[in-house]
Amino acid sequence: MTSNKMIISIKQITHWGKRVLSTLRDRVKTFLKSPKTLKPLQLPAPGFKPATKQYEIHASPDYMELKMAFRDIGRMNAILETLGRDFLTAMPDGAYKSRLSQIGFLYRRMHEELANQKIATLIEKAHAHEQKHPDDWDLWDHANLREMEIMYRHHCQADPVLIEKRARLMYEGRRVHREVRRNNDWETARPFLENMVDLHRQLAETKCLRNNEHETEAPYQALLREYIPGARVDEVETLFTHLEKSLRRLLPEVLERQANRPAPLPLTGNFPSDQQMWLNRSLLSVMGFDFTRGGLYETGHNPVEGGTPDDTRLVILTADTSTFLTSMKSALHEGGHGIYIQGLPRDTWRYQPVGQDLGAAVQESQALLIEMIFGRTKEFFEYLSPRAEGLFQKFADPAMRADNLFALRNWVKPGWDRRNADEITYFFHIRLRTRLERDMISGKLAVKDLPEAWNAGMEDLMGITPQSYAQGCLQDVHWFVGKFGYFPSYTLGHILSAQIHDRMKRDLQNIPDLLRAGDFRPMRDWLHERIYQKGRLLRPAALMEEITGSPLSIQPLMNHLEERYLMAA
Amino acid sequence: MTSNKMIISIKQITHWGKRVLSTLRDRVKTFLKSPKTLKPLQLPAPGFKPATKQYEIHASPDYMELKMAFRDIGRMNAILETLGRDFLTAMPDGAYKSRLSQIGFLYRRMHEELANQKIATLIEKAHAHEQKHPDDWDLWDHANLREMEIMYRHHCQADPVLIEKRARLMYEGRRVHREVRRNNDWETARPFLENMVDLHRQLAETKCLRNNEHETEAPYQALLREYIPGARVDEVETLFTHLEKSLRRLLPEVLERQANRPAPLPLTGNFPSDQQMWLNRSLLSVMGFDFTRGGLYETGHNPVEGGTPDDTRLVILTADTSTFLTSMKSALHEGGHGIYIQGLPRDTWRYQPVGQDLGAAVQESQALLIEMIFGRTKEFFEYLSPRAEGLFQKFADPAMRADNLFALRNWVKPGWDRRNADEITYFFHIRLRTRLERDMISGKLAVKDLPEAWNAGMEDLMGITPQSYAQGCLQDVHWFVGKFGYFPSYTLGHILSAQIHDRMKRDLQNIPDLLRAGDFRPMRDWLHERIYQKGRLLRPAALMEEITGSPLSIQPLMNHLEERYLMAA
Repeated sequence: MTSNKMIISIKQITHWGKRVLSTLRDRVKTFLKSPKTLKPLQLPAPGFKPATKQYEIHASPDYMELKMAFRDIGRMNAILETLGRDFLTAMPDGAYKSRLSQIGFLYRRMHEELANQKIATLIEKAHAHEQKHPDDWDLWDHANLREMEIMYRHHCQADPVLIEKRARLMYEGRRVHREVRRNNDWETARPFLENMVDLHRQLAETKCLRNNEHETEAPYQALLREYIPGARVDEVETLFTHLEKSLRRLLPEVLERQANRPAPLPLTGNFPSDQQMWLNRSLLSVMGFDFTRGGLYETGHNPVEGGTPDDTRLVILTADTSTFLTSMKSALHEGGHGIYIQGLPRDTWRYQPVGQDLGAAVQESQALLIEMIFGRTKEFFEYLSPRAEGLFQKFADPAMRADNLFALRNWVKPGWDRRNADEITYFFHIRLRTRLERDMISGKLAVKDLPEAWNAGMEDLMGITPQSYAQGCLQDVHWFVGKFGYFPSYTLGHILSAQIHDRMKRDLQNIPDLLRAGDFRPMRDWLHERIYQKGRLLRPAALMEEITGSPLSIQPLMNHLEERYLMAA
Repeated sequence: MTSNKMIISIKQITHWGKRVLSTLRDRVKTFLKSPKTLKPLQLPAPGFKPATKQYEIHASPDYMELKMAFRDIGRMNAILETLGRDFLTAMPDGAYKSRLSQIGFLYRRMHEELANQKIATLIEKAHAHEQKHPDDWDLWDHANLREMEIMYRHHCQADPVLIEKRARLMYEGRRVHREVRRNNDWETARPFLENMVDLHRQLAETKCLRNNEHETEAPYQALLREYIPGARVDEVETLFTHLEKSLRRLLPEVLERQANRPAPLPLTGNFPSDQQMWLNRSLLSVMGFDFTRGGLYETGHNPVEGGTPDDTRLVILTADTSTFLTSMKSALHEGGHGIYIQGLPRDTWRYQPVGQDLGAAVQESQALLIEMIFGRTKEFFEYLSPRAEGLFQKFADPAMRADNLFALRNWVKPGWDRRNADEITYFFHIRLRTRLERDMISGKLAVKDLPEAWNAGMEDLMGITPQSYAQGCLQDVHWFVGKFGYFPSYTLGHILSAQIHDRMKRDLQNIPDLLRAGDFRPMRDWLHERIYQKGRLLRPAALMEEITGSPLSIQPLMNHLEERYLMAA
């Protein structure tokens, strides 16, 4: 053991001690504030090691060099977040073209710095060191090197020119989408989407993964894995088939039960946009979002999640002033993303691969846990209702009562609109999109036949026929910004969120009381300890298994839906 | 002549033809709108060649490669503009440290891409081509290669580590300055400034220029040249000595004359910040600022000029609601910078060195031409007064009359405050700062002795003793952000602006009428044709000589000041 290691050990012990102390202190504080929220004191699990620092000298100089290289790559990524947010929210229109070229350039440069022989050699040498001197590598370093290699493999065979082109199209696509949706303009959308599909098929086919996988689905699987590390198309398909079967059975039961109850009262009057934003910011604050490292802003287009743990500025739409529930839903959703991002191991692993989130499915699980699981409970509306009556000056308005807001929010109704779909029919939207994008990437479905396939799918799944392209295949921004393979994340996230919630209930027995008191902190702490602060220490499947003790399963989600939609008073 | 060249010639002819047509079209439009503003039709001067494109294939592949390399450097620069503006205006506080490291990283990377052997070799080879095949190089290409070399030489010997450190300190300094000024805290300011002075001396000494210049003043001259290409310390000193002599003579005369006239009425009541901003934006619009490629925003700290021709977002301070003249002054000043930047040859030379502005002295000449020369005339206030009476709801308020606003704005009074100084005493502020920064860089003045030297200088130049550090040597942000060598630009710009105005008056005889009508367009067009669109085609001294027909001279400025402050009714 070198003297360097010794110093680190002492540092680690101090760190460990501080952590236990601060855990204790927090418990005491929580106790003093609200005895109901006390949860059993949990010492760090044995085997869990506090993260060491990204600048810590490591015995392998090659790994050290990799850490420095990935730091710069991470910085470029963070710079791209800032450029992209500015592009979508504040940039003057005339800067459009030049900004696209700056973004494309930086993506290309980032790609070039990552996908080159030098990085490959360093990774190989670091692996050799890892095998020869296992004692020099802790869990975090192992994971960091593993994630470096995965990032490298994802990039190494893609043509930098395609990367640059894709980056430009990703941002151009937002504007194209806004226009074609507004004008119901399929003729303009079609060639753009064809271009996007071709580009992504080409990119996927050149991926390293291709070397080992020659099936028809391999390109779609490569795209899927950009969002959901380690995902398999066939496994997703099996899961979705089960879920479809269960939900096709559940939906009519729910609708029948609903038909026998009075419909909720619609909201009336005006909900000014700035008051909606005040409410949304306050709710995020209550949930533990740190406004000194982020914010919540408005846009005229689609919401934007993301950012970095140091700068998590979220963007939502508040155009509709006839209800506050729509923008609140967005705020809770993006807030769920934001709180996860802010909890990543920032001080210790900033910019390193192991310090990043676990990809779209886990991201969505965190967003949907807040938005759908917690944010649609009766208890949450009991917290919200009196405060909303005050804020919007609607004392004694029966539509503002907790039970009415709850009923409004959880009203189940098949429709064309994914973004405002209820918790049950939401899946059918995802089911359709997943199938269509898979078929477009494999070449089974031509873009020109998309509208027809879309409408047939909607008819089959929900008995709905969209009245326009804008209400049909032009409603979502995803394909226009190249997010092929993203849609399944919503449903996988929903499944995960129910599994996580199930487990959480065993540790925190009083969640309904906490929600009624507006006290999100115990839930946030629970998530922070088990998910946020671990970054990519484990791969998604392993982490979920560690937390929930079981593999991915639709049962907890089905239980949750049955409880809420068939059994609740 | 290659066939490539043929195509270019046809393109050039078409371009030329379009330019003449559009000039004609604009004239007709102007004529129809407002016959008074008609100016004689001007065909492009013989010898003036429309700029060719940055992507045009060039016979020298080395030059072509340089163009691509400088394009990426230019993009990084543009990205830094966006990061920096966001840093100063919108970023959440918690992102402070990580953003500093991103900015520092990008500066270092930009430096590394510019200051390396590959660029040097390409420049050498391109020069060889230039000499061997002079017909392949037009004026713009010559100038572009020359500016590439100058940029290279400015960077080539600086240590990348110092560059990164400087970039971080530049941004940290803004925050430090805000704090120390607010708290009158010299003890915190001193070590920070010592660090800044040392760093800049060190940087200056390692500059390539050092190789040929061993005098005491050489480091300061190297810094000066970052802002004013080709400037010489001794020439600036001679000019400033003359100007000091003339103004020491003029000032008492002006004060005596002023004492015999009634003092202007102070503004009373409240000028809400959002109305000030509306006024400022409207004035900029009238002046020809293009809001589709820029904007005007508010900040709590110092104004920020700059941006790129594609994205010129200006930032000013509007904290004071007891007068609209202060924020208007800032808006006109930053607007002058902005209009110049927006007029640079964007479509043809985007990101290339020859497409950039001519440095701080010419920049300031454009800002001061708008702010001080035009924006303080009686005629401008005649345009402004009735509109301001309406906007701020102050009909029949005698303080709002044009002659009173004019008198308020042009009231001469020695004081401690540079930013709000009048047009005559402004120079004394610059004189003092130039001398002090020169002496700090040469080592003649230690930072610890700065407050004393400052107060002695103020006493000597204007008979003023600042009442605090905040009113003394802590009032300006420049040294805190490392802008040693910038201050002389204000006075050189003032001198230039008077020379340019002198020449402009010969082409446009009705400037006072135009100002009274709020028609800035003929002046803007005049400046655009002679300065903005030329980028760095000529070096500053050569361009100014081309425009004004004479070398730098203080006479036009002295004439202007005597006319406005001794002779005006």
